[in-house]
Amino acid sequence: MTTLDELAEITAAAAAAAPAVANATADTRSGWLSAIADALDAHADELAELANSETHLGVPRLRGEVARTTGQLRLFADVITEGSYLEAVIDHADPAAVPPLPDLRRMLYPIGPIAVFSASNFPFAFSVAGGDTASALAVGCPVVVKAHSGHPALSARTAELTADALRDAGAPAGTFALVTGRETGTALVRDPHIKGVGFTGSVAGGRALYDLAVSRPDPIPFYGELGSVNPVVLTTEAVSARSSALAEELVASFTMGAGQFCTKPGVVFVPAGSDFASAVAAAAVAETGGRLLTERIAEGFAAGLGALASDPEVTVVAGDIAQFDVHSTATPVVLATTAPALVTRSETLLEECFGPTTLLVSYASDSELLTALRLVPGSLTATVHSEPGEDITELVEVLRDRAGRVLFDGWPTGVAVNWAQHHGGPWPATTSLFTSVGATAARRFQRPVAYQNAPARILPAALREENPLSIPRRVDGRLTFD
Amino acid sequence: MTTLDELAEITAAAAAAAPAVANATADTRSGWLSAIADALDAHADELAELANSETHLGVPRLRGEVARTTGQLRLFADVITEGSYLEAVIDHADPAAVPPLPDLRRMLYPIGPIAVFSASNFPFAFSVAGGDTASALAVGCPVVVKAHSGHPALSARTAELTADALRDAGAPAGTFALVTGRETGTALVRDPHIKGVGFTGSVAGGRALYDLAVSRPDPIPFYGELGSVNPVVLTTEAVSARSSALAEELVASFTMGAGQFCTKPGVVFVPAGSDFASAVAAAAVAETGGRLLTERIAEGFAAGLGALASDPEVTVVAGDIAQFDVHSTATPVVLATTAPALVTRSETLLEECFGPTTLLVSYASDSELLTALRLVPGSLTATVHSEPGEDITELVEVLRDRAGRVLFDGWPTGVAVNWAQHHGGPWPATTSLFTSVGATAARRFQRPVAYQNAPARILPAALREENPLSIPRRVDGRLTFD
Repeated sequence: MTTLDELAEITAAAAAAAPAVANATADTRSGWLSAIADALDAHADELAELANSETHLGVPRLRGEVARTTGQLRLFADVITEGSYLEAVIDHADPAAVPPLPDLRRMLYPIGPIAVFSASNFPFAFSVAGGDTASALAVGCPVVVKAHSGHPALSARTAELTADALRDAGAPAGTFALVTGRETGTALVRDPHIKGVGFTGSVAGGRALYDLAVSRPDPIPFYGELGSVNPVVLTTEAVSARSSALAEELVASFTMGAGQFCTKPGVVFVPAGSDFASAVAAAAVAETGGRLLTERIAEGFAAGLGALASDPEVTVVAGDIAQFDVHSTATPVVLATTAPALVTRSETLLEECFGPTTLLVSYASDSELLTALRLVPGSLTATVHSEPGEDITELVEVLRDRAGRVLFDGWPTGVAVNWAQHHGGPWPATTSLFTSVGATAARRFQRPVAYQNAPARILPAALREENPLSIPRRVDGRLTFD
Repeated sequence: MTTLDELAEITAAAAAAAPAVANATADTRSGWLSAIADALDAHADELAELANSETHLGVPRLRGEVARTTGQLRLFADVITEGSYLEAVIDHADPAAVPPLPDLRRMLYPIGPIAVFSASNFPFAFSVAGGDTASALAVGCPVVVKAHSGHPALSARTAELTADALRDAGAPAGTFALVTGRETGTALVRDPHIKGVGFTGSVAGGRALYDLAVSRPDPIPFYGELGSVNPVVLTTEAVSARSSALAEELVASFTMGAGQFCTKPGVVFVPAGSDFASAVAAAAVAETGGRLLTERIAEGFAAGLGALASDPEVTVVAGDIAQFDVHSTATPVVLATTAPALVTRSETLLEECFGPTTLLVSYASDSELLTALRLVPGSLTATVHSEPGEDITELVEVLRDRAGRVLFDGWPTGVAVNWAQHHGGPWPATTSLFTSVGATAARRFQRPVAYQNAPARILPAALREENPLSIPRRVDGRLTFD
């Protein structure tokens, strides 16, 4: 565990590095991100093996996650090179206006050292060199990562590769550090040098840290990705047309990563009277399941299943709850209930449960469906499977109100990393109006500064009249590339 | 005072209106904003007289503030028509990628009913139909305004004109409402229908409401513009070149609106050994001062001056502290101290004090100056007056770190409302990384939603392939207007 004295040194070094990290050009920082990506790619096999020994997620999936992680480091390298992330705006002076208008030029600046709390379930993509780290470094913020206790050796090794790559690429000492220990994490959020927090984890853990961040003498932004049940709706026509394919796809999605994706479909609305539950049960038998990430998650899985199955209106469609042992493989469990039961006990029936399980909810009418959907907690995703020609307008509006990403005829467990992606949603999916995945995640770690009547020699390059960086800017109200 | 039962009805009506307000086209909402602006302009004389009777700010200044307020309503009408505020991003599918990439389309949506807390010192621009209201309505959020007790009749009349204009322009019932009363304001922040808060006011009041917003079962964003001392630095060369002009301009700036601007220069760094203090004293004599907005502010002014003057190293350069009576006119008071004294007692000497006063701080060297500046609390503005050819690079970097707007050879008390303006800064200037003035203020009340593989018939107009709204979008990573 990092001691509090060590932590104080680490955050002081981050604060000392902050001006140099902020003042590095986008091309320079872009080079740092590429260097980290290259280092991780060069050690991908070693890292995937190490990760598998600590997480049991399987080498192929982990090898793929390394690629996603280096891909997102390279995406942010491109994002800052493109330049829109600075949101440069120039309004020229208008001495004839009443009152006269000064010359005003606005851009975004990094907010300072960021604390990043890694997640257990994505030991690369949401961990030491994951999206939060990449987006914070990209815009010029030093990063102090709190390692997840679920993969300590991998965290240390990834941090070593990251720190070495940064050093070799010329980044200042203090640009990046790793700390460990629960208490140290708490102290990190309250450390005066830390100016923002990125977090991926449980609702309880995230809320506790959020409460610390906002109760500081100087509150700081806390970007938490917390919990999500990811509702899926199957229309009557969709189930009629392709029940067994949907059942197989659903099982593949809710068992992916042993059901430990933030985007796992946790509740599936199914037309009453269909054979869908038996189709899911049949497909679930073929899935062997997997070992859960940590004992804590395994205990949570057992407790969650127990609570659900004790409900008088919940039936077990597939799997054997009694048999689950927290030290062995978790096999798929499919539960079922009705929309009216869900409406009565939405808080207990709609609690997120990590692990390979999902809850089928049968609805007898559109109004039953919509009433139940309106009670679904804020989620990262919401999905609808329908047939062409069906009118799903109102359904989509309800889903959009509950989630940050609305999917059509697909499954939520894949998260593409690009410009348009959004990974976030109404509370408790996230604590803020930002995304934690994709290009726009960089905006979380920046604040605006406006220069009024600044002499040309003082202006940063992004705001100089001649646009030396050739970045997109808004000039006198119009977007321009000149 | 609005009762809690009445409040519950009002917020329920706002929530009921939210989908229709959100789904109105930008052109429609633009029309609503213009209608409000037209109504206020048509009643500008009446409103300015009414405001003057409650605030003593003077009819000419208040008449100008009506114009600024209707100007900002019209700015937001233009902003939403232009369309960039939706941040539309399209990434087309790439089936050949590994893993294959889906079609993803992202845009921003309104977050729902917003509580707006008006300020005492700008009874139009930061009040009932001010910037928070304009920016929230613009993006499609219903608004419930908590009136400031300092101008109750004006608040009621402005609300009446606003509500009538909205109704006549076809906005749904529930789009806008006014509530009064301190307890009602507290309940408003905790009301489950409210999804965000805009606030302009004191650090103490703002922090109390911020704490409520973030301690809700579902925390909501709180955009507070709280307190600011707005440091000004005069270089030795600037004072040598234009001491008396600077002194006159400073007095005009810190006495504007009886010293009750958020952007009042509250602390002015002056080279030691100059005659600047006497020049300011001479200029201050000519200023008559004005009546303060409320008894509370007058008491705060008296208490703040008393605390400052009791410091052994603070001298009174102009004005008579003992003579101030909270029920009469506040005349200008100029205080002076040294940078080393400020460094020793920065917390007490750098507390914001509303009213016509400023603190001159003499510095004997650049290092004394920079050390003191680094202790200045986060501010809305920071200003430097220098002469051409001086190297102020490091100075500007320190000022930029402390403030959201850096001014050169001007005074912070004017706030232009346009695309580039930023009114915000590190805590306690604001609670967030957003602005409360200018075009980008609209972003505060929006959240992203991504559509994955949505059928064309489901996509909102902003995300349709053919770009029917002709708005700027990012398509496959490139900004485009097509």
